[in-house]
Amino acid sequence: MSRIDIIEGVRLTDEERLDWLRLIRSTNVGPRTFRLLLAHTGSAKSALAVLPDFARRGGASRAARICSREDAESEMQAAQALGVRFVALGEADYPTRLQSIDDAPPLLAVRGNPAALAAPMVAIVGARNASAVGVKFAERLARDLGEAGFVISSGLARGIDAAAHRASLATGTVAVLAGGHDKVYPAEHAGLLQSILTDGAAISEMPLGWEPRAHDFPRRNRLISGLALGVVIVEAAKRSGSLITARMALEQGREVFAVPGSPLDPRSEGTNGLLKQGAALVTEAADIIPVLHPIMGEPPVLSLREPEAPPPGHAEPENSERTRIVSLLGPTPVAIDDLIRLSGCSPAAVRIVLLELELAGRIERHGGAMISLL
Amino acid sequence: MSRIDIIEGVRLTDEERLDWLRLIRSTNVGPRTFRLLLAHTGSAKSALAVLPDFARRGGASRAARICSREDAESEMQAAQALGVRFVALGEADYPTRLQSIDDAPPLLAVRGNPAALAAPMVAIVGARNASAVGVKFAERLARDLGEAGFVISSGLARGIDAAAHRASLATGTVAVLAGGHDKVYPAEHAGLLQSILTDGAAISEMPLGWEPRAHDFPRRNRLISGLALGVVIVEAAKRSGSLITARMALEQGREVFAVPGSPLDPRSEGTNGLLKQGAALVTEAADIIPVLHPIMGEPPVLSLREPEAPPPGHAEPENSERTRIVSLLGPTPVAIDDLIRLSGCSPAAVRIVLLELELAGRIERHGGAMISLL
Repeated sequence: MSRIDIIEGVRLTDEERLDWLRLIRSTNVGPRTFRLLLAHTGSAKSALAVLPDFARRGGASRAARICSREDAESEMQAAQALGVRFVALGEADYPTRLQSIDDAPPLLAVRGNPAALAAPMVAIVGARNASAVGVKFAERLARDLGEAGFVISSGLARGIDAAAHRASLATGTVAVLAGGHDKVYPAEHAGLLQSILTDGAAISEMPLGWEPRAHDFPRRNRLISGLALGVVIVEAAKRSGSLITARMALEQGREVFAVPGSPLDPRSEGTNGLLKQGAALVTEAADIIPVLHPIMGEPPVLSLREPEAPPPGHAEPENSERTRIVSLLGPTPVAIDDLIRLSGCSPAAVRIVLLELELAGRIERHGGAMISLL
Repeated sequence: MSRIDIIEGVRLTDEERLDWLRLIRSTNVGPRTFRLLLAHTGSAKSALAVLPDFARRGGASRAARICSREDAESEMQAAQALGVRFVALGEADYPTRLQSIDDAPPLLAVRGNPAALAAPMVAIVGARNASAVGVKFAERLARDLGEAGFVISSGLARGIDAAAHRASLATGTVAVLAGGHDKVYPAEHAGLLQSILTDGAAISEMPLGWEPRAHDFPRRNRLISGLALGVVIVEAAKRSGSLITARMALEQGREVFAVPGSPLDPRSEGTNGLLKQGAALVTEAADIIPVLHPIMGEPPVLSLREPEAPPPGHAEPENSERTRIVSLLGPTPVAIDDLIRLSGCSPAAVRIVLLELELAGRIERHGGAMISLL
């Protein structure tokens, strides 16, 4: 329901946009918490006001770091200098399909041609140490899908990603960055990124100046698939990043396509494994287009897995309730519904306490409305 | 029903075996006609006696060539000299699974170790111009399936077939020949065939001395799949012989497995195409064994597509009936049921006339009890 509140096709004022940026840049506020807070307090401004109290009641070991107005303003200015704009979830130019994922970034830093983000997209991803044949196939596929009207999203990585971007420069391609717009990774692809920006775009949810670290890549992968109607995995070893993208795509209800390869080539273990699990086999663009055409016109399906927000307003739980709820939590994930039942507290009280604990960095949310103590 | 008559676990006398050989070696007598004749006349001996009359009434342009007793005896002697025995459909040492196909050879010329034909089998076939990787994979798969207790059937061809045979010499392998046992093709595989015969076997339905011609290979392919519980296609171009084997396997109700390959390798076009059509994807023996294990113990399913034989005994149709039936036939296939209805003749009369026409070489039988005039 917090989703529905956000997605109204409204347009933020500059002041609201600054508050949104401050809130998403504050400690322990991720896309889901952002929405819960907005639904509970009504605005990013009010959320920023209650955030310290929430985190303190949740047992934060030190004062919650709230992104200052000055820091947000200086990020805004740096962004402007680089030609980056912040598009808010719910605004008209936010990529349509991306809106539908559970943890869509509240603010997307966009650079390049915004029209590329409005087109139907196919993600093409794969191995960094791709074979010559894999690179050639990725190029052919990206070119053919581009000519069929699809924009290609990918991760700007070496190998398959770069091949897919290069072959779709003329028809439109979107690079999804794991770090800030000013921290291009790998650095050798700075030139490729410039070419992409002519007709295509680059997006990031990370702050300017953010150097991407290992765990930022899987997190970023959900945006590559989230943008697209379907994801094509061209070459992928076992336990590779591309398989993470495939899993994300499945969770997001996206079509998953995989390109077959020799059983003796380790770069095909991942894709052949996906095929065994039911991914659609791709040897040419014609295997993809008829699958995606019928769903192109459909509005994105909103996920049903949105965590339920505490009711708006301030029904502060009693301290005894807080203690009881915390005592029921442990390192093993527990369902929120069980927590409500076992604690005997009201659903509203449980949800507020969980929000407090989250802002204090003490709990982790898992799939299926499960919670564990960190 | 002719099938049931044949498969009784009986053992032919030497004299009966000679008659069977004469009948199947006679002009226009194929495996299906053989059974119809046996069901109608009761024995190969009686069938040989009525054959000239049948062919004459069917309008044969010249006297039907019946294999003479002398020719059959000399084939028997040549076979014996080569260590080849004739096993009849219905005898205990006829390969179990092969019995269940529509057009199982009435007599199978067997050379080598008969025990190999009693084991559960997997067919491995593929491209003659196989890649190094394809050959290596075929070897690995044949070895692993052999160690799991499966005998490997294949076609002794260059490339994948030879690799599959070689890797299963120790565990048992069966070569299915397109020509006679004394006409090994390709000639360079004579040594491989000798190695196969130590623990495995070779089979053929063709006469000794028969040089295989192009159209004998697709016909032979039905035996490679017919022997086996499942067929694995390792590398195959579009419109290749291996795809014919896959189609035969499907028609025979066998499991079809295909090995994936790069979309840019023409040797994978056929296998990737099979995968798109629903063949099971194979990257290791473990993808095959659990599928075949449950059906290993099952008795083979007898096909229901056996053409219905005319009733035993001799209810010779009138000439007017014969004329009416022939006039209804043309180059476009027509259903036997329609022929019965439109001619107004009894089903028995129609079936006898069709048998006559077949022995005269004037009609062709298609799937689904359809008939056309040649």
